[in-house]
Amino acid sequence: MGGETGKTNSKRRVGRGKQRKRVKIAVPAYIKRQIPYYEFLGEEGLVTLEEQADWLIQEIGLEFRGDDEALRIWKEAGADVKDTRVKLPKGMARELCKTIPSKFIQHARNPAKSVEIGGTSQVFACVYGPPFVRDLEGGRRYGTINDLENLVKIAYQLPSIHHTGLVICEPCDVPVSKRHFDLVYAYMRYSDKPFLGAITEKSRAQDSVDMARVLFGAEFMENNCVIMGNVNTNSPLLVDKVVTQAAQVYCGAGQGLIAAPFILGGAMGPVTTAASISQALAEAMMVGAFTQLVRPGAPFILGNFLSSMSLKSGAPTFGMPEPVMSNFIIGQLARRLGVPLRSGGSLTASKLPDAQSAAESADSMMSTALGGANFVLHAAGWLEGGLSTGYEKLVQDADRLGAYQVMLSGLPIDDNAMARSAYSEVEPSGHFLGCSHTMANYETAYYDAILSDSESVEQWEDQGSKDSARRAYERWNRLLNEYEAPTMDVAKDEELKAFMAKRKAEIPDAWY
Amino acid sequence: MGGETGKTNSKRRVGRGKQRKRVKIAVPAYIKRQIPYYEFLGEEGLVTLEEQADWLIQEIGLEFRGDDEALRIWKEAGADVKDTRVKLPKGMARELCKTIPSKFIQHARNPAKSVEIGGTSQVFACVYGPPFVRDLEGGRRYGTINDLENLVKIAYQLPSIHHTGLVICEPCDVPVSKRHFDLVYAYMRYSDKPFLGAITEKSRAQDSVDMARVLFGAEFMENNCVIMGNVNTNSPLLVDKVVTQAAQVYCGAGQGLIAAPFILGGAMGPVTTAASISQALAEAMMVGAFTQLVRPGAPFILGNFLSSMSLKSGAPTFGMPEPVMSNFIIGQLARRLGVPLRSGGSLTASKLPDAQSAAESADSMMSTALGGANFVLHAAGWLEGGLSTGYEKLVQDADRLGAYQVMLSGLPIDDNAMARSAYSEVEPSGHFLGCSHTMANYETAYYDAILSDSESVEQWEDQGSKDSARRAYERWNRLLNEYEAPTMDVAKDEELKAFMAKRKAEIPDAWY
Repeated sequence: MGGETGKTNSKRRVGRGKQRKRVKIAVPAYIKRQIPYYEFLGEEGLVTLEEQADWLIQEIGLEFRGDDEALRIWKEAGADVKDTRVKLPKGMARELCKTIPSKFIQHARNPAKSVEIGGTSQVFACVYGPPFVRDLEGGRRYGTINDLENLVKIAYQLPSIHHTGLVICEPCDVPVSKRHFDLVYAYMRYSDKPFLGAITEKSRAQDSVDMARVLFGAEFMENNCVIMGNVNTNSPLLVDKVVTQAAQVYCGAGQGLIAAPFILGGAMGPVTTAASISQALAEAMMVGAFTQLVRPGAPFILGNFLSSMSLKSGAPTFGMPEPVMSNFIIGQLARRLGVPLRSGGSLTASKLPDAQSAAESADSMMSTALGGANFVLHAAGWLEGGLSTGYEKLVQDADRLGAYQVMLSGLPIDDNAMARSAYSEVEPSGHFLGCSHTMANYETAYYDAILSDSESVEQWEDQGSKDSARRAYERWNRLLNEYEAPTMDVAKDEELKAFMAKRKAEIPDAWY
Repeated sequence: MGGETGKTNSKRRVGRGKQRKRVKIAVPAYIKRQIPYYEFLGEEGLVTLEEQADWLIQEIGLEFRGDDEALRIWKEAGADVKDTRVKLPKGMARELCKTIPSKFIQHARNPAKSVEIGGTSQVFACVYGPPFVRDLEGGRRYGTINDLENLVKIAYQLPSIHHTGLVICEPCDVPVSKRHFDLVYAYMRYSDKPFLGAITEKSRAQDSVDMARVLFGAEFMENNCVIMGNVNTNSPLLVDKVVTQAAQVYCGAGQGLIAAPFILGGAMGPVTTAASISQALAEAMMVGAFTQLVRPGAPFILGNFLSSMSLKSGAPTFGMPEPVMSNFIIGQLARRLGVPLRSGGSLTASKLPDAQSAAESADSMMSTALGGANFVLHAAGWLEGGLSTGYEKLVQDADRLGAYQVMLSGLPIDDNAMARSAYSEVEPSGHFLGCSHTMANYETAYYDAILSDSESVEQWEDQGSKDSARRAYERWNRLLNEYEAPTMDVAKDEELKAFMAKRKAEIPDAWY
């Protein structure tokens, strides 16, 4: 099965240059889900949640602050706008959301790595945003542009990571005013997978879109999605100009926008999970509606990021049963609305890639996978509530993502899988080890998790009694050492560099 | 929510002696599932799997070896018996299984801790069988009776462990011929939760049942299930006397039997998961049918233990996507048959309680929980493919079991959960931290995982930068230090001891 295997990966990479034979296992660029959805909540519960989202939009309204153009767009569309409060008449938000494509392709510069987002497709992307990085030998420290490039190079080689996202760590050694150039360039140059663009300021969003236009060509980009912005609302019920301007830049250019309310229950939303789900739906739906006013048919992903809270300290917690349940439910709500969904991830509050990290990440990610999230940011590398990117965590998560990918592809129940012929070869009390059915099938029968040690304790001790973090450390170092950049058109590369040089010269260094 | 909290636990325990007030959180003795099943496989696939199980029973047959009485019982019932090969005519196995109770109570000596097994109930039990134990300071070593008692004392205090099972580790310092007495006594004396009995030999099964008769009284036991045996078939398709004699002893006394085929795909069953699921169903159904010939209406649990295989070495692997899918599917098959199901657990091949251990255990256990397993052996403490019991792993797993328990109890969607009133208190862009809805709900809003550290990295460093394993080490030591034995009727205790002394005197020491 198309798994997270170094062997496969190495063959693919070497094969590009040297025409090696036997590329046995085809690694899909994204997941085409073959298993049913888990319908966690019944019709009545779903309607209750939807009605509350509609009530929030109609009766409470959302604040849209800092962007007069956004208010003008809402007014023109017939919204009830008083100062910065925007309310929509019943049904208007859902009506506007109808032009959101239920699925779309985000193109990668390597066409074999383009991904479909929406429908039954599922795409796993890297962690986004941590200012710190951590690795086993180097400890915890501020991220640098060198870390960012390293992490992109590692992620590029991990087949179960379909999309590299953006800001795999903050390159804190680069001035904020110019950081977005180096960021976007690293994703364009060191990987050939799809990626996101900057959003922190309108001009930075525009620079990202302009760089994508260099890479993909203006004509192609006019009719295709090649870049997206990922924004958060300011919960509760506040949408600031970062969101509305990113919508205008990205969607205005026919590109995609992801809007994910981040709600820590009891702080940015009610402490009860059901109410926070409704609030998140209302906020994301309003941004979705806004994108369709900017450009009907623009790609939009309804995002969701709900966190529970430690009762001891009020700190956000991850991988807990309440967000697990919301991953299932928000999947149902997004499918009812007919729009692509971003939710979940391999989330944890742990500082280290230890058992806490893995347990919380697994429960978070399993429910994300089963819940049908179409685009999963933070699927690999997230540590410490998103404050830190773990080098070891990145490859550990990727190893497990390969397992979810196999699960989502379903279980074969054909004649070969039923293996009736094997019982004419193997008697009761015998064994199947050498029988022809086993020989014909064993290479593809099971997922091969390369970071899982399944050997005897004696073999494991002989190899140094390494725990998962140590093996992960060795793996990412090996990947980094073996890295070969994907080929890139030299003229395009020069053009990108020239664009960045020109723009950087226009902008003073600034650290905000 | 009824979670895995030390606070709760400590209050409960102290409360018993000193009549403390406020025992706020009621901890249920088992899970009454409130969420839907995940119907992974469609009707056609399920029928294919069932038909293959029926075909195996009808055309290939199972070997029943070493127990002439079992063959006699089969013959008398009208089975096609040639030498030791037993085949049943079409439909007979399913017909016999109809008298298996779809659910039943296993009584604990503390009535508040009796569990319902079957239907929508789910029961989590400890790891069963490892010859080795491991803890952070003591390392890996053979289990002793002292380890066993320690582990039972810890498990007794963990509210998300509903059933203590048996053989939480092998007490390797006690002669095998007498081990079962000390084992069963430890579970009776140091815990008041339900437990299992020995099965390795007919007389040991009988001793276990006789000890239960002392504890619960002959009359009560005649009409109630208070003890069960857990047996494995010898896959493929071989049932030995350990199974059939345990069935005669336990079911003959109106007690329960669990029969779990252990199939490592490619060795004890075909390498394709679908075929192994069918084989497991056939084997367990045959044992179930046999129990009903011994005593119609005897409690029986259809077991399942499928493992995938490392393609590198042939070693069993755990927490992989193929067993995850089989956990979902076998749940569907058991419900269609109408019998209680044992499957899954917190399984891993890892030697240490590290990230591998936690990731594999989580995916294994989440699918077990969602799949609807009624009785989950190995839900806590399993390490190293079942060769070792982890002290840290036991409390780590229990912490996560509490989370699954919350998930299985579902998400409230009532007026309080929808929190509309909170929006009249909190304006858009405000916060919900002090609002009355938050104050009224925060104590029960979220699961409180005591082993998860969610604090800031600075606080965590101040507290010693402890990883999950270190915190787990401290927790089990604390539980062990704080342990107070549940009260027990002195006369009963004396009677048990006298029974054991008499029987032990009759049996020579033997190490096999």
